[in-house]
Amino acid sequence: MRPDLLARLAARQQAQAGAGLLRRLRTVEDAATPWVVIGGRRLLGFAGNDYLGLAAHPALRGALQDAARRWGVGATAAHLLGGHRAPHAALEEALAAWTGREAALLFATGYMANVGVLDALLARGDLCVQDKLDHASLLDGARLCGAELRRYPHADADAAARQLALRPGAAALLASDGVFSMDGDVAPLRALAALAQRSRATLLIDDAHGLGVLGARGAGSTAAVGLDARAVPVLVGTLGKALGTQGAFVAGSRALIGALAQFARAHVYSTAPPPAVAAATLAAVRLAQGDEGEALRARLREGIAQLRAGAAALGLRLLPSDTPIQPLLLGDACTALAWSRALEQAGFHVPAIRPPTVPQGQARLRIALSAAHAPEQIGRLLEALAVLHAKAGAATGAVPAAP
Amino acid sequence: MRPDLLARLAARQQAQAGAGLLRRLRTVEDAATPWVVIGGRRLLGFAGNDYLGLAAHPALRGALQDAARRWGVGATAAHLLGGHRAPHAALEEALAAWTGREAALLFATGYMANVGVLDALLARGDLCVQDKLDHASLLDGARLCGAELRRYPHADADAAARQLALRPGAAALLASDGVFSMDGDVAPLRALAALAQRSRATLLIDDAHGLGVLGARGAGSTAAVGLDARAVPVLVGTLGKALGTQGAFVAGSRALIGALAQFARAHVYSTAPPPAVAAATLAAVRLAQGDEGEALRARLREGIAQLRAGAAALGLRLLPSDTPIQPLLLGDACTALAWSRALEQAGFHVPAIRPPTVPQGQARLRIALSAAHAPEQIGRLLEALAVLHAKAGAATGAVPAAP
Repeated sequence: MRPDLLARLAARQQAQAGAGLLRRLRTVEDAATPWVVIGGRRLLGFAGNDYLGLAAHPALRGALQDAARRWGVGATAAHLLGGHRAPHAALEEALAAWTGREAALLFATGYMANVGVLDALLARGDLCVQDKLDHASLLDGARLCGAELRRYPHADADAAARQLALRPGAAALLASDGVFSMDGDVAPLRALAALAQRSRATLLIDDAHGLGVLGARGAGSTAAVGLDARAVPVLVGTLGKALGTQGAFVAGSRALIGALAQFARAHVYSTAPPPAVAAATLAAVRLAQGDEGEALRARLREGIAQLRAGAAALGLRLLPSDTPIQPLLLGDACTALAWSRALEQAGFHVPAIRPPTVPQGQARLRIALSAAHAPEQIGRLLEALAVLHAKAGAATGAVPAAP
Repeated sequence: MRPDLLARLAARQQAQAGAGLLRRLRTVEDAATPWVVIGGRRLLGFAGNDYLGLAAHPALRGALQDAARRWGVGATAAHLLGGHRAPHAALEEALAAWTGREAALLFATGYMANVGVLDALLARGDLCVQDKLDHASLLDGARLCGAELRRYPHADADAAARQLALRPGAAALLASDGVFSMDGDVAPLRALAALAQRSRATLLIDDAHGLGVLGARGAGSTAAVGLDARAVPVLVGTLGKALGTQGAFVAGSRALIGALAQFARAHVYSTAPPPAVAAATLAAVRLAQGDEGEALRARLREGIAQLRAGAAALGLRLLPSDTPIQPLLLGDACTALAWSRALEQAGFHVPAIRPPTVPQGQARLRIALSAAHAPEQIGRLLEALAVLHAKAGAATGAVPAAP
């Protein structure tokens, strides 16, 4: 008798619920970074990836509205079939110039960029070596193309070298997040670049959380450590985080980008994003690489320093990170959820991140900072965390140690 | 010595170029269905999927602009982490109601919807039976989850039954496009639904090109033949075609949608679409299911009838199709390209569709109609086709026959 797919999926959900790991969808009723309204209550948000506070910036909003006047909403077709509009072309040029690459190719999302580029580059039997904490989309890209996937312990370039050395004759991609989405730390980029060069592997860095945030003029985590297009031939960037809109791109040589436009199925077989969103993103790129971007990044760095100094003074266990992603490790999923709920009671939106998004036993609050946070707001979060920390210490006698 | 991935990809592109199958990216400099400006020339477009002409409709444009005022541009986070905004919730409700389902879940693109739902439903070793002409994203979904993929000859439900019968004990998904994107014909939906029921397979229909176009109030190809949520438990729809915006959704039971929100990785690990785009899409749904939508569909049907009657009178070989997708089969890729170029010279944008998007020997012009086409414009296209047809007959002595 054939098992029923829908019943099996429902059973999986029940099991997840039984383990206390069901994620709860909250509808945000109103929002402007750093504020969100949820359940009728106005909360100070430390959840989004709007690191520069651009998502509701008047320049982006205005660009979207102006472009809608000329272009309407949808692009009506895939890029190759008449959907590629002037704002897409202008945005691709600006992204290539910003990241110091010859060319760039838009994708509708970061998930599609990673899945599309891995599937185009790799074939069954090839080797794909990845950091264990790489984004889900890089793992899915490797699954899709059927390459042999090997995952090395987080940030361990020596382990990556050993995995590459196991198959010295295989075509190989070495892929890593630039900034890790749930930990906030930066990959050992120079070591990975050196490894890729000496082992003849192709290096891909997904700089979703680094672009706009790190490096001179916000050009990202690879630029910040002086790695150029030769060292990182395949660079993925995201438009839905520091740039405040939606979508993603791959940047690289003209040859690579030209071939991806032909062979990356996630690009070829998908409607192009709304031209008006591309126009808004172009406005974001101009802001992010200009003086306003520099000022926003300076403000963001001050906020990060303030949060880390405050947390250290409280003895709170923030993971080591110099980026806007500042995770507070709490261990089990129930504790993380309890802290998140208590913070919501106190007027803050800081979601708990639980397995399977993070490994078992590493549930956490992911505190995400933005240049839109005022020092006073970060101070209030620290006060609320101090209260919870004191309560937790009083309840268990065990205060989480600083790392 | 390790082969170089980038060199291999470049070689693949050269081979494609050698075979005359390289696709050329054209930038559209201005557009409003049915017009596009390419290379400084204003062309009458028969290429896009804006079947109702809604992409630049004032109601959608206005909804986008208004929502941008309140929501800015990006959603700043994934749905489960604070990115799910009121316009997303309202749109999901409207899509569920329109399609007669309990619930719906948004995805950023149709590619992600198909990949996400197949990966959540199917596991390695399961059986996935698909029409040979299903969209690339359904094939990629099956590849991703590692199920055994069997593809039956186009529209052959008996062949599908034989493939399901080969493994009567395997969990199985039967998946088909509702309207085939490059052929324009409708799947044998009743036969597939009966087959799924008697073989205990789960039926998924991707109605990307049927939603908004077919059925009472535009509810799609399955509604048009009286199939309800019980018969088609997994319904995928697209927002970037008849609805004129971008994105996609899966509609089904509350249990299915709740589980997909937890387990569909393409949904979970991706930034939510811009709330303003969701607001524009909601305006599109209201239009499409209302009286204006009925009037637009009536106009579209007249255009389809006009084109088919005109083509038949000319002896042109249009594939059998009652939908806005009216392919003119030309055979080899060079011929299709030559016709597309000649039409462009004459002032029309009708892209040639070549392998690998369609099978070898089945290159074609994909003429896509919209309610925005005036009868006079369709008449002009027919005149241009008549000239080309006469020239082709004169040159080769062989006039393509009607099917």
